[in-house]
Amino acid sequence: MTNQERRDSTRTRILASARDRFTSAGFDATSVADICAASGVSKGAFYHHFPSKQAVFVALLERWIAELDESVQSAAARNEPVPRRLENLAGLVGQVSELGSGQIPMFLEFWRQASKDPDVWRLTIDPYRRFREAFAALIQEGIEEGSLRPVDPDAAALVLVSTGVGLVLQGALNPAEPRLPDAGGQAVRMLLGGLEKEASHES
Amino acid sequence: MTNQERRDSTRTRILASARDRFTSAGFDATSVADICAASGVSKGAFYHHFPSKQAVFVALLERWIAELDESVQSAAARNEPVPRRLENLAGLVGQVSELGSGQIPMFLEFWRQASKDPDVWRLTIDPYRRFREAFAALIQEGIEEGSLRPVDPDAAALVLVSTGVGLVLQGALNPAEPRLPDAGGQAVRMLLGGLEKEASHES
Repeated sequence: MTNQERRDSTRTRILASARDRFTSAGFDATSVADICAASGVSKGAFYHHFPSKQAVFVALLERWIAELDESVQSAAARNEPVPRRLENLAGLVGQVSELGSGQIPMFLEFWRQASKDPDVWRLTIDPYRRFREAFAALIQEGIEEGSLRPVDPDAAALVLVSTGVGLVLQGALNPAEPRLPDAGGQAVRMLLGGLEKEASHES
Repeated sequence: MTNQERRDSTRTRILASARDRFTSAGFDATSVADICAASGVSKGAFYHHFPSKQAVFVALLERWIAELDESVQSAAARNEPVPRRLENLAGLVGQVSELGSGQIPMFLEFWRQASKDPDVWRLTIDPYRRFREAFAALIQEGIEEGSLRPVDPDAAALVLVSTGVGLVLQGALNPAEPRLPDAGGQAVRMLLGGLEKEASHES
């Protein structure tokens, strides 16, 4: 193992142990000493990688958001008409649900911490804004290419992101209930086609 | 003041103080002694009303859910075509946002507790299920009266409730951002009319 590999492995172990402890015991009840003990890392090594427990928390959050951003960008950029790209993006609901499965206490801890710390708060809010901007740009493109009605792109983006967030949350809060297969896809298709009868293709 | 009035006032004061303390300090960091001191109630009086701190927490949650249930029932029952009733129900998004405004730390605390306690968990999940059932019944009615397309009522209800939950959450997480006026109404109208051009009334 090179020095760089050893450093990466130490950092990875700290992050994994911290996530486990934050999830099971909560952020407040977890000390740097707990994380060191759980990861088999000395305090010196810990502080070499992270200035504080809070910094570990922020690193976990950043890593999760980066994974999500990458998925959104790659799904949005495919070379297809916008309605089909929106259907592709719906797959993210399942992906995020999968990712968040069993980690609800961790995310609630994220939010609780975020609600107390302006820097973490910004970090939690920024992705929503980026997702909404990405969706608004996509809807604008759909209006211009003639596949979507001339709706307000910002309002439509808010609705799409909200629906996704709500679906993920309900799946996460109620893991025992059988999940609707492809709930995101069904939601996007309903939103594209409309529920009202006069708006239907068959009418 | 009658004895009954005095008892009600004590209970109300305990609930108000507990909510303040849970919100500012968190559930774990709040003791029965803290709640008693903040509400000016003796420990004897506290335990006359509530067997435990957890019971106060559950009472707060139940009260909030009862208010919400009442709003849903009254908006759903109005004697109008289903699409208009769905638009009325959209007003709940604003109402819940109003209610939840500034109380996010309290709700995160609710959820965090709920994720640890099966009884509180059930209490948190049940309203979602009731709301979804109420919406599914309404959509079924719309299909039967001929105002809605023959969609899957359960899937459509999930989408509607998810969108509402997502809108409330985003408004709550980002109070600084100017709110879309009538976001719920816009969402319902988009969902009724559809985004895709071929689905539009004008096509």
